[in-house]
Amino acid sequence: MNAVNIGLLGLGTVGKGTATILERNAAEILRRAGVPVRVAGAVVRDVAAAQAWQADAGLSFPITSDGDALVADPDIDIICELVGGEEPALRWTQAALDAGKHVVTANKALIATHGDALFAKARSKGVGLRFEAGVAGGIPVIKALREGLSANRINWLAGIINGTGNFILSEMASHGREFADVLAEAQALGYAEADPTFDVEGIDAAHKLAILASIAFDTTVDFDALHIEGISSIQPEDVAYAAELGYRIKHLGVARRRDAGLELRVHPALIPEKRLLANVDGVMNAVVIHGDAVGPTLHYGPGAGAEPTGSAVVADIIDLVRGGAHPAGAGIDEPKALPVLTSAEFRCPFYLRLEASDRPGVMASVAGIFGDLEISLEAILQKEPSALDESSVPIILLTRDVDEACMRQATTRLEALDDVLSPVVTLRVETLD
Amino acid sequence: MNAVNIGLLGLGTVGKGTATILERNAAEILRRAGVPVRVAGAVVRDVAAAQAWQADAGLSFPITSDGDALVADPDIDIICELVGGEEPALRWTQAALDAGKHVVTANKALIATHGDALFAKARSKGVGLRFEAGVAGGIPVIKALREGLSANRINWLAGIINGTGNFILSEMASHGREFADVLAEAQALGYAEADPTFDVEGIDAAHKLAILASIAFDTTVDFDALHIEGISSIQPEDVAYAAELGYRIKHLGVARRRDAGLELRVHPALIPEKRLLANVDGVMNAVVIHGDAVGPTLHYGPGAGAEPTGSAVVADIIDLVRGGAHPAGAGIDEPKALPVLTSAEFRCPFYLRLEASDRPGVMASVAGIFGDLEISLEAILQKEPSALDESSVPIILLTRDVDEACMRQATTRLEALDDVLSPVVTLRVETLD
Repeated sequence: MNAVNIGLLGLGTVGKGTATILERNAAEILRRAGVPVRVAGAVVRDVAAAQAWQADAGLSFPITSDGDALVADPDIDIICELVGGEEPALRWTQAALDAGKHVVTANKALIATHGDALFAKARSKGVGLRFEAGVAGGIPVIKALREGLSANRINWLAGIINGTGNFILSEMASHGREFADVLAEAQALGYAEADPTFDVEGIDAAHKLAILASIAFDTTVDFDALHIEGISSIQPEDVAYAAELGYRIKHLGVARRRDAGLELRVHPALIPEKRLLANVDGVMNAVVIHGDAVGPTLHYGPGAGAEPTGSAVVADIIDLVRGGAHPAGAGIDEPKALPVLTSAEFRCPFYLRLEASDRPGVMASVAGIFGDLEISLEAILQKEPSALDESSVPIILLTRDVDEACMRQATTRLEALDDVLSPVVTLRVETLD
Repeated sequence: MNAVNIGLLGLGTVGKGTATILERNAAEILRRAGVPVRVAGAVVRDVAAAQAWQADAGLSFPITSDGDALVADPDIDIICELVGGEEPALRWTQAALDAGKHVVTANKALIATHGDALFAKARSKGVGLRFEAGVAGGIPVIKALREGLSANRINWLAGIINGTGNFILSEMASHGREFADVLAEAQALGYAEADPTFDVEGIDAAHKLAILASIAFDTTVDFDALHIEGISSIQPEDVAYAAELGYRIKHLGVARRRDAGLELRVHPALIPEKRLLANVDGVMNAVVIHGDAVGPTLHYGPGAGAEPTGSAVVADIIDLVRGGAHPAGAGIDEPKALPVLTSAEFRCPFYLRLEASDRPGVMASVAGIFGDLEISLEAILQKEPSALDESSVPIILLTRDVDEACMRQATTRLEALDDVLSPVVTLRVETLD
């Protein structure tokens, strides 16, 4: 029984987690894979530092700084690309596939932006390219979508797929705090990067959504076609008003099939508090997938971290060792491009907040605009004047389903009213129906 | 490209769902399986009734009452055993495996009680025996456990795996209703059988738990070793007191690895209301799986119904068509028996309720027993005397982790107190830590 030799590109958080699991759970992995699986080499920039970690961890495998050599090594069967970023990750992945090796990657950006070419190469070489670790960390959601729910036509999916953003929104909701304040704490705790743009502006979530959507709808996804909004402009009062209406604000990635095309959007959204997804707090991730046969399913777990992500990497390795029959998996093999809708073509309920003069007739003017545009209202809250400015009152509105183009007409007309004193804050509502 | 021919044993709820999905989603299934998948024959007791349904549904495939012939038919590639029960399901399954056909089954009782022999036969014939539909309906939880989390040593799992019981408990909690009253409604709605024993006494959940545990721990499970308690004795006041303490009562299947062996138990339990699992309501199912690398994951969805269950059957079919490499799957291939603990060896926190005389010193006597036995208390509630009997008061206690044998000593001593006027109600608490 020959061992399967793993080459790790990178020994950062995920690489260490992967190496640790392969060692600690070697007996379980042998039983499940059918053959021993071992790390045969790792590539790092700082060999001495990695060897020091390795000694502490009680592990022993060769460590080098020469990634090209490891990728070319004929003794290596499976390459795990865990360095992240564009280069050298892309070059090494291409070289490994060209050399006829399976590749497991945690690099969502690479798959989201170069996936089509890489999968084509994997197919032509008859090897596997797996990326469970790239989306929602330890949650086996790629496998659920591609295999567990393979009987279904997927109608939509919606996920909390960035732990940093969810930690910030959870803290804002439970303690009434400001975005900037929580972000600073998250950075101190190591949950957020020094430059948090990737997380809080939705780029990371969009990479993951692009991957999920491509599998869900058997389509290629042009990353630039995604509509992306971050959470940095979320105000504590909107979190509080949402709660008063029975909703929680979460940063969602949503992919929904419409007759005219796909909605692919990352943005903060109000979710009814009775939904499980509204109760996913802290750094945890969760994805709801709605299939035509199964209905709604939810997949929850840690979206990041050394061993949760390593769990996904090792599961992909075991799958590759066990089943060479469908290396690239279904849903990616013959992708066809589906039309992607622009944001003006989206349709959902909306939450709106505006400051208005505290005068008779204001509410009639506001409500009149919605009546004219035939937008049904689900709820209206007129609050007390604020202590700071007693001449104005906040008005909060919740609409039923409306075309976004129509919603924009409403906000333009609202902002043109003399009695509306501020820009209109709008947030989408995702009822998960 | 040859079509794969499916033989359906049974055209009840699940059989109809399976046939409907295979027809409606034929294009998706072809893309994912790589070849066309079609129903080539179905076996029913009442051929005329099935043909009438088939005509209404716009389907056309041969329908017969001769199961033995269908199983022996060399044109059939995969048999779906969807008749349930012991016989003829067992005989047909054995015959199909003997004939070298893959089998997909939704029959949890068959797998829980005859699985070891059937898997051995499948292995010896080099064919697959799949049963995703047998546990938690449309949720791909068998796949998650066996493949998605294959890198992990599973520490424990806990699930709401009987929709009927969860519907009853959800209604009791949200409306303060009596068990018998909700059961009668569930029977009228078709959620509960005329004889509800299988569901409400935990037999159905135990079958599913036995299957989950056998995979999670790579072990054979003797069904008779499971500890099983139903929900028919749950009182509305316990639901209400649990809520006051911040808990919900759910009917759980729990499998937990301890140093001395496995806890395998089905019983009602208090769950902290902040846990997602505590918020799984109605007929929905959910399973939390805790792996050493990934931590906690939750898998949620419809646990029953024609198309949700059919979704799982068809996913198994697609897996078998795509990957013949590991037909019986890991975790079942070389099972070894692990010791199973008796209920006296379980360990968890407990909820207790008793009626005591409304006299000074009673609480001291009660608390003294817990002190003597070194059982830590998390909370104590002494309620107002009831309107019916002003001489007695309900006392509710919540313990920290305690050995169940020790807990029994406590209840024996409590019930021996002159001032304790009723048997002590005890319910386990599952914190999901």
